[in-house]
Amino acid sequence: MATHPHAGDPVFDLHVGGKMEILSTAALSGPDELSLAYTPGVARVCEAIAADPSMTQHYTWVPNTVAVVTDGTAVLGLGDIGPAAAMPVMEGKAVLFKQFGGVDAVPICLDTTDVDEIIETVVRLAPSFGGINLEDISAPRCFEIEARLKERLDIPVFHDDQHGTAVVALAALTNALRLTGRDAATVRVVVQGAGAAGVAVARILLEAGIKDIAVLDRQGVLNSERSDLTEVKAALARDTADHFGRRGTLADVMAGADVYIGVSGGQVPEEIVASMADDAIIFGLANPTPEVHPDLAHKYARVVATGRSDFPNQINNVLAFPGIFRGAFDVHATAITEGMKVAAATALAELVGDDLGEDHIIPSPFDPRVPGAVREAVAAAARADGVARR
Amino acid sequence: MATHPHAGDPVFDLHVGGKMEILSTAALSGPDELSLAYTPGVARVCEAIAADPSMTQHYTWVPNTVAVVTDGTAVLGLGDIGPAAAMPVMEGKAVLFKQFGGVDAVPICLDTTDVDEIIETVVRLAPSFGGINLEDISAPRCFEIEARLKERLDIPVFHDDQHGTAVVALAALTNALRLTGRDAATVRVVVQGAGAAGVAVARILLEAGIKDIAVLDRQGVLNSERSDLTEVKAALARDTADHFGRRGTLADVMAGADVYIGVSGGQVPEEIVASMADDAIIFGLANPTPEVHPDLAHKYARVVATGRSDFPNQINNVLAFPGIFRGAFDVHATAITEGMKVAAATALAELVGDDLGEDHIIPSPFDPRVPGAVREAVAAAARADGVARR
Repeated sequence: MATHPHAGDPVFDLHVGGKMEILSTAALSGPDELSLAYTPGVARVCEAIAADPSMTQHYTWVPNTVAVVTDGTAVLGLGDIGPAAAMPVMEGKAVLFKQFGGVDAVPICLDTTDVDEIIETVVRLAPSFGGINLEDISAPRCFEIEARLKERLDIPVFHDDQHGTAVVALAALTNALRLTGRDAATVRVVVQGAGAAGVAVARILLEAGIKDIAVLDRQGVLNSERSDLTEVKAALARDTADHFGRRGTLADVMAGADVYIGVSGGQVPEEIVASMADDAIIFGLANPTPEVHPDLAHKYARVVATGRSDFPNQINNVLAFPGIFRGAFDVHATAITEGMKVAAATALAELVGDDLGEDHIIPSPFDPRVPGAVREAVAAAARADGVARR
Repeated sequence: MATHPHAGDPVFDLHVGGKMEILSTAALSGPDELSLAYTPGVARVCEAIAADPSMTQHYTWVPNTVAVVTDGTAVLGLGDIGPAAAMPVMEGKAVLFKQFGGVDAVPICLDTTDVDEIIETVVRLAPSFGGINLEDISAPRCFEIEARLKERLDIPVFHDDQHGTAVVALAALTNALRLTGRDAATVRVVVQGAGAAGVAVARILLEAGIKDIAVLDRQGVLNSERSDLTEVKAALARDTADHFGRRGTLADVMAGADVYIGVSGGQVPEEIVASMADDAIIFGLANPTPEVHPDLAHKYARVVATGRSDFPNQINNVLAFPGIFRGAFDVHATAITEGMKVAAATALAELVGDDLGEDHIIPSPFDPRVPGAVREAVAAAARADGVARR
């Protein structure tokens, strides 16, 4: 294409024609190849799969291919911009899947926001894919969609905005606790934000043995005294703040807290940041504007992480999702279990090893050891959890 | 993969791991590229598309990407083998789309055979694709699915089993008529088979000016004296045999016929073949067993074509569909019109030119001129028909 409406802008220049293409791995140079790859030869492969569906794993691209599915309702920080405008993000995700996981990913942007319709559509698509990566679907709809798809399908279903974020946050927090000499069983954590990421972060922290967690939405701490909670939030309240009687506002729970994890997009006032415990840990994960800017956070905290690439300790989902699907696909996993997610986080945390420091609690996305380490840990956990088919 | 269940068989060896993969066209070698192709840069591209949906055409892979959609109910000659077993054919189709048309094609094998569900699913997928190629969906369901999708969508929808076959058959027949000195307005044609291909072949012959057509299903010639016809067959009867009072069996209409086109998979007895006019034209398109074997056909006919690559005059859809979508995509066509199909057939026929002969009425699929000739003819016809968006 000779030109385009935003020519000269590096972002738009890079996007001309999109960011991906299909490549044939079986080139057809003449009639002989055509008769193997297409009719009449291909009919025998079809018959073999019809007779034994597990042959799909050998003779199609399905077992290495994930659908990246969105309805465009919660795209980055842009919100509900619709399926067409979501496509560049989904293509970007597909590029990352391939580059860091060797996984073929197909962007599927759906022209519906109805929960039942999204579920039915994905179920009908499922024979074409080895896994489903849900992406940028707004809460609380995303919880029901993921839960019901996991029930209906025997392939991995993973909502990256929830679990990718949760895995990487847990990895970083594991190292931050080690660095500051804290114990998971006694550390006091505040999670601000009860959307897709907040709920998943709280859940994986519980899975990893952290007990004293207060999760907040805009109305304050989730606890069972509140009557305005969704089903998902009510269940989370019972598993978190209820046990320690935490309630009230952000200011109430931040006083003396060891860890703050922001996944809300708001801004935390300095006096609240100042009220945290000594050697505090602050993760402000909103992009592009962290809930606590690193310059402010460093005045009061020992370990600071963000979602940004221009500060140390970037909590970036790309550390997790390519290796998680790679590991799941390696063993033809039927699901992605809590154990597989925690194993991915542990593997990421361990990669830091002796290089642990305030500005190095998590590997770089470009650390070449990352995909392999996550892949192996996830595959092993799939076997341990009994969801591996080979 | 070290080994597989059918190792050593060339067809299966070629299929290990499938026949396609996703390639990133925007490689990410470091944080700078990542910030352009993904966050934060990509957000600006999303916003540009949200503000002006036509920007999809510039900055995503959508306008060059077709979904190859099947429900697995009529795969090759294998019948209803289901979506999983259909995948190798859909991958093969995708490989051909890329190789001969430069079109990225994504195989979508649906886990439903319900007409309404297939339509709703494809409509919901539509923002992800620049066109829909329906494939191997059984008749008469395929007619309704295609017709309703064309109404609902403003991108090309094309059922290749119908229209790809029809375009190439028309191209071959055009040259066969030229070779035998026949006139479209007076030639007598018999089409055996009233499924997807038979209906579409008859329709495109009518579009091209052929009038005296008898279409047969298993019960005989479609005509309005019959009370057992589907809506599609009844409409076709009114446009074909009714005008000339044709009725009865294959034997009845083959006596004195100039042209036989078989898309039924049955076998025509020799005495019926022998009853055709002098210099007869016989297309036996069933694969792998033509309705009239070429050895038999040549005893009575002057021009013989099949669907097979091991005989002269192969009627192969690959001559048509890659160039048709390429041409439609080049001009961002909103549909594939009858005019675009006839233009494709005319372009294919004209490529034979002065090399016309009994064993050369249609170009080879590997003739390098084919995709470009079809592409240009289709794009021009799209403009003439007012469906081009640029």
